[in-house]
Amino acid sequence: MKTFDELATGDRFESRSHTVTGEEIASFAREFDPQPFHLGEEEARGSFFGRQVASGWHTAALTMRLLVETRPFTGGIVGGAAEVTWPRPTFPGDTLRVVAEVAELIPSRSRPDRGMVVVRSETLNQRDEVVQVLVTRLVMPREDRAAQGLPTRAGRKDPR
Amino acid sequence: MKTFDELATGDRFESRSHTVTGEEIASFAREFDPQPFHLGEEEARGSFFGRQVASGWHTAALTMRLLVETRPFTGGIVGGAAEVTWPRPTFPGDTLRVVAEVAELIPSRSRPDRGMVVVRSETLNQRDEVVQVLVTRLVMPREDRAAQGLPTRAGRKDPR
Repeated sequence: MKTFDELATGDRFESRSHTVTGEEIASFAREFDPQPFHLGEEEARGSFFGRQVASGWHTAALTMRLLVETRPFTGGIVGGAAEVTWPRPTFPGDTLRVVAEVAELIPSRSRPDRGMVVVRSETLNQRDEVVQVLVTRLVMPREDRAAQGLPTRAGRKDPR
Repeated sequence: MKTFDELATGDRFESRSHTVTGEEIASFAREFDPQPFHLGEEEARGSFFGRQVASGWHTAALTMRLLVETRPFTGGIVGGAAEVTWPRPTFPGDTLRVVAEVAELIPSRSRPDRGMVVVRSETLNQRDEVVQVLVTRLVMPREDRAAQGLPTRAGRKDPR
C-alpha cells in the first residue's frame, strides 16, 4: 500500500482473478439491469447479443472489487470521475483480472493534504481479451508532510 | 418506447425515484467495494467521508436500474462507453431519480441497421443535488427501414 508521495507514474499492480457465473450475472441484472440479455441464456435468445452477457455495470463493479482487494493506495480508492469503455462483453464462465497503471499524479494546489491519481485499468478475460478499459481520477490523502520538509497539518493549525 | 428514427435531440425522460437504505449500501459494498466508508456508519467513522456513503458504482448501478425501467428505447440500453462523475456522494436515506436527455443521434455508416445515441443523464437526490452525471454512448437497432422508404434488410438479403 503506497502513499501519494511514494507513487510514481507507470507503477503497475495486478489483481487476483475471479470467475463469473451465469447466476451471478443474472443476480446482478435482476437488481440493477433487468434486460433480457443479462437475465439468462433462455431470456437472451433473439436479443441483441443472442446469449447471456454481463451488464457493463457488473463488469465495472467486479473490476472495483478486484482493484480494492489489491490495496494499492493509502486512504482507499475514492473516485470523483471515471471513463469506461466495454470493448466486448463478459460472458458466463469468464475469468476476469485487472491490470492497472498509475497514469498521472497531480498534487492539489488548494489542498496540500490531498493529491489526485489517475489510474488506467484494463479488465482482461481468460483469453487476455480486454472486456473493460477504465480511467479513474482518484482523490488521495497526502499526509506524509513532515517527511517532505513541509509544515504538518497539526503544525499549521495549532502552532503551540 | 421509441425507435432510433423516432428520437430527436433534446428528448427527455425521467425515472421514478428510489430511496437507498444504509443496508443496501452495505450489501453492495460487501460484494463489490468493501471499503470502510461504504460498509456502515460505524466503519465509516474516521474515514475519508466520516460517515457511510454509497460506492460510486452503486450509484451508477442504481441509475442504470432507474433508466432501464423507463424503457426509453427499442432494443434496450446497450452501452459501449460511459463517462461518469460523482459530484457528491449518495448517503443512506437519499431518494434518487434520474433525468436523462438525448444529446446526440449518430446513424452508423457501416451498419445501416444500427445507430448510436448519446444520452446525458443526471442522478438527483431529494434536494435536487446532482450525485452523478453520466454520458453514455448506446448502440440501438434501426429496423424501421421500410417506413423510411429504404430497402429492408430482408429485401436486400433475399430478393425473391
